[in-house]
Amino acid sequence: MRLSRFFLPILKENPKEAEIVSHRLMLRAGMIKQQSAGIYTWLPLGKRVLDKVNAIIREEQNRSGAIELLMPTLQSAELWQESGRYDAYGKEMLRIKDRQDRPMLYGPTNEEMITDVFRSFVKSYKDLPLNLYHIQLKFRDEIRPRFGTMRSREFLMKDAYSFDLDREGAEHAYNRMFAAYLRTFSRMGLRAIPMRADTGPIGGNLSHEFIILADTGESEVFCHKDFLDFDIPAEDTDFDDVAGLRAIFDKWTSRYAATSEMHDAAAFEAVPEEERVSARGIEVGHIFYFGTKYSEAMGAKVQGPDGKEHIVHMGSYGIGPTRLVPAIIEASHDENGIVWPKAVAPFEAIVVNMKAGDAACDAACETIYAALAKAGVDTLYDDTDERAGAKFATADLIGAPVQVIAGPRAVGNGEVEIKDRKTGARETLTIEAAINRLTAAD
Amino acid sequence: MRLSRFFLPILKENPKEAEIVSHRLMLRAGMIKQQSAGIYTWLPLGKRVLDKVNAIIREEQNRSGAIELLMPTLQSAELWQESGRYDAYGKEMLRIKDRQDRPMLYGPTNEEMITDVFRSFVKSYKDLPLNLYHIQLKFRDEIRPRFGTMRSREFLMKDAYSFDLDREGAEHAYNRMFAAYLRTFSRMGLRAIPMRADTGPIGGNLSHEFIILADTGESEVFCHKDFLDFDIPAEDTDFDDVAGLRAIFDKWTSRYAATSEMHDAAAFEAVPEEERVSARGIEVGHIFYFGTKYSEAMGAKVQGPDGKEHIVHMGSYGIGPTRLVPAIIEASHDENGIVWPKAVAPFEAIVVNMKAGDAACDAACETIYAALAKAGVDTLYDDTDERAGAKFATADLIGAPVQVIAGPRAVGNGEVEIKDRKTGARETLTIEAAINRLTAAD
Repeated sequence: MRLSRFFLPILKENPKEAEIVSHRLMLRAGMIKQQSAGIYTWLPLGKRVLDKVNAIIREEQNRSGAIELLMPTLQSAELWQESGRYDAYGKEMLRIKDRQDRPMLYGPTNEEMITDVFRSFVKSYKDLPLNLYHIQLKFRDEIRPRFGTMRSREFLMKDAYSFDLDREGAEHAYNRMFAAYLRTFSRMGLRAIPMRADTGPIGGNLSHEFIILADTGESEVFCHKDFLDFDIPAEDTDFDDVAGLRAIFDKWTSRYAATSEMHDAAAFEAVPEEERVSARGIEVGHIFYFGTKYSEAMGAKVQGPDGKEHIVHMGSYGIGPTRLVPAIIEASHDENGIVWPKAVAPFEAIVVNMKAGDAACDAACETIYAALAKAGVDTLYDDTDERAGAKFATADLIGAPVQVIAGPRAVGNGEVEIKDRKTGARETLTIEAAINRLTAAD
Repeated sequence: MRLSRFFLPILKENPKEAEIVSHRLMLRAGMIKQQSAGIYTWLPLGKRVLDKVNAIIREEQNRSGAIELLMPTLQSAELWQESGRYDAYGKEMLRIKDRQDRPMLYGPTNEEMITDVFRSFVKSYKDLPLNLYHIQLKFRDEIRPRFGTMRSREFLMKDAYSFDLDREGAEHAYNRMFAAYLRTFSRMGLRAIPMRADTGPIGGNLSHEFIILADTGESEVFCHKDFLDFDIPAEDTDFDDVAGLRAIFDKWTSRYAATSEMHDAAAFEAVPEEERVSARGIEVGHIFYFGTKYSEAMGAKVQGPDGKEHIVHMGSYGIGPTRLVPAIIEASHDENGIVWPKAVAPFEAIVVNMKAGDAACDAACETIYAALAKAGVDTLYDDTDERAGAKFATADLIGAPVQVIAGPRAVGNGEVEIKDRKTGARETLTIEAAINRLTAAD
């Protein structure tokens, strides 16, 4: 993408409304624009990151055996009356009446609707296990939306729902998602620690939050330092291997880890002092096993191998992509801007033409840009006529992992500079060597 | 994808509520489920088609120079008061109050919001031309939603918005989208004919609907038969070439074409009788140039090269993906089910194991399925224990372009049968030859 043809509305000043660094950087880098309280437009740079985050989520959901569909945003109140949550949910639920005066709502989550999908079609245990997910907008009318897309009202959620014949099957479904979540966050450059959690309005008795450690996190968390080194499940993890997934779950729940709500000071103090981690954390995922709470209320049952009817056991599994983006920034930035992990970077590389209009600089940049495009390296080419200083600031701010800097002096020698955004390390290479470096497989 | 692990709730009976063939087939093939009047879940098979349609739209939008962002579904009433459409829009607009009693609405379209994005950031003619698009849910509270997702209330729309310094620039922007639309529909196997259209509530004085011919179309259309043979703009079309795009526009508007609303019987009768086409049509896209209607009301202006302020000229350009899916089915089906064009097929091929559990059949199917997966051919493997007749019916119904049929007799000879869904032609090939056929580049 040529910057002259992109839409990247960088802010020069720090926006006053931003209380946390990710919000400030997302506004400054032209990633988002607030439209109403807690409601955001994702500008093109932000949209690119969101797409990459969604793609990773989707790949890992599919790998674990979950199947994607797409439920609508608006739901009928009737469904929620069946489960009893219509009255219970409170003011966070955005209630709507259509032109026929029928009570509707903007879905804050989809347990009821997916249970309705299930009961409409699935009649036999032979169709189980089943895990259906979607990535869809939700709305929760928070009284005080804040921190940009970290706590917004209209937000994107990946929500998966598992259906099994019994508790044993449901626990395997839970472990599948548990392993998939570890992989998902790891691929985004995050170390997420599963912490036993309260189940809140979703219900049930088994639940984990996935928390990443970040100084600016919203809540206090406590865990054993072993979590920082546990292995992430490999790409070839067999999601049908009940014992294997159980072992992953057991390992990742074998040490103390709790958010402040679930914190047990005595248990934490039983951990040797040098192995305790007290930090701030950001929740990036939440999984629940809630048994037959919705299936019983809504009549979701199948015929079992015994010929009898069985109420199915369910779980639900959420990740908030529009919250993950700022969470990644909280975990990875410096005083000059965002430092994207490559897998979710809006552009993997930026080519900075220090003197656009100079024939040699233009030619060098075009050569590099064309070679990177051909190799499938997602590249932004800053071909604008801004001065070099502003271009460097923009490159640092938007945080592409690698910068290729072409100035008249270096280009005169057939060379360019490569800068690693994270370390700041710079290296001068011939144009050919630079292209080889950037197009080399990881 | 193994069918035993997919979620494909086929209906054996024709659903009574479906008045048109696409609605009937989408329900029967397990593509959609109605959740409320005019509000649908896209089940996994439908979601796959929708994703492919969106991917083609996105590629052609990007190719033409448009840039993707993502605006939210909920908008504040204030924005629409600025343009004057809040009161004018009528009951199709879903009006909402949030918990603070602020008037909101579920966006039926986004002219106001994109104009707000533009005016917030763009100050100079140097940032023009600009075309921003998103693919986002919309809601229009139709009094009588019907025909499945062809005329639903919650629907997906690709809407692009162009901003130019003057009318001349805006006309080029219009021609860009005009050419992009011809390519978009053609890639989905559709011949769409641009027809001069009324501008309705969007406003403006230049507008075309893109109409595909289908016996079951909602409206009567009239055009010259030359449209059936005009060349589609090539992949390497230069979208910066003002004269070149103008020539495409001129050619595609050089013959008579009109919907019934704009029909001029006298002009049509001036066309030689053997060159007239009277048919039914389905609208799949609509483009508008409306000048300064929104930019003037909302103060979207830039500094021009003359140092003065100029109100920008705008256009908007819509495609409805959730309507395109049934439109493609209307244009391509037979008595046994859907006949997908390859580019939008939920699966490019289906492998039908006529006798699952038979060692030789299983081995042949696994070999083929693995080879197709490796070659990146999107394949459904029917590994279930249904009887062969039901499997053939399902394969025809869901309409994958190629069927690979493995029965005990053929497999005993090291062979399988290949069936072309569209022509019904069958051919017996060795397993190796079948794999080669299916993995050969087009």
